[in-house]
Amino acid sequence: MQTVSVNLGQRSYAIELGEGLLSRVGEILKARGIGGRVGIVSNPPVADLYGEEVRESLRRAGYETALVLIPEGEAHKDTASLGLIYDALVEQRFDRSATLIALGGGVIGDVTGFAAATFLRGIDYVQIPTTLLAQVDASVGGKTAVNHHQGKNLIGAFHQPRLVVIDLNTLRTLPPREFAAGMAEVIKHGIIEDAGFFGFLEERMDSLLSLDAAAVESAVAASCRIKAAVVEQDEREDDRRAILNFGHTIGHALESFTGYERFLHGEAVAIGMIQAAVLSAGRGLCSAAELGRIEALVRSAGLPWRIPGDIALEDLVAGMALDKKSQAGKIRFVLCEGIGRTRFQWFSPAEIVRELAPGP
Amino acid sequence: MQTVSVNLGQRSYAIELGEGLLSRVGEILKARGIGGRVGIVSNPPVADLYGEEVRESLRRAGYETALVLIPEGEAHKDTASLGLIYDALVEQRFDRSATLIALGGGVIGDVTGFAAATFLRGIDYVQIPTTLLAQVDASVGGKTAVNHHQGKNLIGAFHQPRLVVIDLNTLRTLPPREFAAGMAEVIKHGIIEDAGFFGFLEERMDSLLSLDAAAVESAVAASCRIKAAVVEQDEREDDRRAILNFGHTIGHALESFTGYERFLHGEAVAIGMIQAAVLSAGRGLCSAAELGRIEALVRSAGLPWRIPGDIALEDLVAGMALDKKSQAGKIRFVLCEGIGRTRFQWFSPAEIVRELAPGP
Repeated sequence: MQTVSVNLGQRSYAIELGEGLLSRVGEILKARGIGGRVGIVSNPPVADLYGEEVRESLRRAGYETALVLIPEGEAHKDTASLGLIYDALVEQRFDRSATLIALGGGVIGDVTGFAAATFLRGIDYVQIPTTLLAQVDASVGGKTAVNHHQGKNLIGAFHQPRLVVIDLNTLRTLPPREFAAGMAEVIKHGIIEDAGFFGFLEERMDSLLSLDAAAVESAVAASCRIKAAVVEQDEREDDRRAILNFGHTIGHALESFTGYERFLHGEAVAIGMIQAAVLSAGRGLCSAAELGRIEALVRSAGLPWRIPGDIALEDLVAGMALDKKSQAGKIRFVLCEGIGRTRFQWFSPAEIVRELAPGP
Repeated sequence: MQTVSVNLGQRSYAIELGEGLLSRVGEILKARGIGGRVGIVSNPPVADLYGEEVRESLRRAGYETALVLIPEGEAHKDTASLGLIYDALVEQRFDRSATLIALGGGVIGDVTGFAAATFLRGIDYVQIPTTLLAQVDASVGGKTAVNHHQGKNLIGAFHQPRLVVIDLNTLRTLPPREFAAGMAEVIKHGIIEDAGFFGFLEERMDSLLSLDAAAVESAVAASCRIKAAVVEQDEREDDRRAILNFGHTIGHALESFTGYERFLHGEAVAIGMIQAAVLSAGRGLCSAAELGRIEALVRSAGLPWRIPGDIALEDLVAGMALDKKSQAGKIRFVLCEGIGRTRFQWFSPAEIVRELAPGP
């Protein structure tokens, strides 16, 4: 087991990381001084796999627990699921000393975190992320949210967890496609902040995909550390934290354009990262060799890397100009200055189309 | 115009207070550096009275505005009203630079504040409270919330306003019964923290009830200052802020027992304050003379002061023991040590019934 610290003053917390931690959740919470009753929020498939193990561990440590299930899937990251959680907490008479546990992937983490941020004006919560994406991305930074029917994550709060417990064994039940999608955010952390880590990923991608325990632990821990360092500098995304959006400008546009059905989030981000690297190379910020390494690493993880031929670049870019982050029709990209550094640049839609167009 | 400062570090804000400020809202916001688009949240009767004046003032100062109406009344302090606000903000494409204005009483302030706390993970809001209760109570402290169908204020957040603008002229359209109910919280601030202010209220109650401008401005400003001083010491009600609940233990029980239909909040608090003073006198914390002064001041404001004969004390107290703030069946009261000081004491239901029972 190792610990990654997220240092945010009074809102600091630890990420405990290792194999077989689910059966030790009770003692880990106890050691951190977490008291009160515990409400575990999960969905049916995850609860079937891990719910009893976690509850039993909590019971052994003396915690009174309740299980709250919400339906599976991004479509249920909404106020209706939130209502289910509030109803259960009220019915069970949870008070301000209670703690919620988010047991599952990113949807469970985001909804549970937002419920904790708003129930009785804020109670503690603990994340137990069971997907690679949630472990390396959602577990750091305290962004919680639900979707509005007209847009994702429009309703939310910054609410840091009290503790994150990552049991790497949960990755063994994760479909390979979802593992690869999580790997996109791992690669992103290398590109934006850490050339050494990027090199490690190049060397060990095969070990990672075959779930070599030591390699996976190193990659998840390093990824959490990199994201933590960024968030520590700009908790509420006033500026610098936005570098975490590398690959997400085109990624979000792809997800939105395809109705969130064709790509997993990490897959869309993978394509977006390569396009952002193309823009970076086009403006002389990174070399052709570095662009080649980024593309090769993304492909070696089994991730998609090209905008599919049936999606017109013009249509994709037209959507971006309407995005809430655009300003006066211009779109801000995170570009890479080589591997390990970033800078922001604004593009008009026409510039994006021209600079991303395949050569003759 | 005068300014009361609420000092909460990075979340500090000013309360601007005077007559005729509604027509100057635009310039006041501008002077405070508030930018972006402005969404005014109100209800139909308040918007009929003041909506156009506020919008016109904002327009003159160069602000683009939108008006969002939610239905009037405590029954609509719910997630449905919240949904109306979110829908309007999304439809109008409000971004993180936008500001909400809460134009109305406590319900409008609480719902708007919570919408601002959670839209895009938090945007600015400005309170323009138009009832005495909202001016002296809800405008200080950043408590925002909506009701759950099983209990009041169960879903909420701490989110300090960016600015509060109090136009005392709005009190001239307030029904006298509502004015008196707001006065209960004003009196409370004297009892818990400031004997001098209590004396001022004793002397000037007639002037206050006839809306003497100087007296009203003094009372509202002093009341905001007292509450601000308490909140500054304990923003998130870990402990000391709970003294603001003086009179609220029995007050809440009365409201709940009568289905929130018979008493205005301030009326129930008025009765609760006198009962809390009776408990205080019974335990030797305040003198019979001080109890007499509290009772006389409450009655001089035209407020109810006795638990009505048709409500059995036993029934009322039984409800309190089930309240979320009770512990092991005991109920915590804020008592007064004379006028101007408080202390907490725990009571069993039997003790409350015995000590509040009318003498032979």
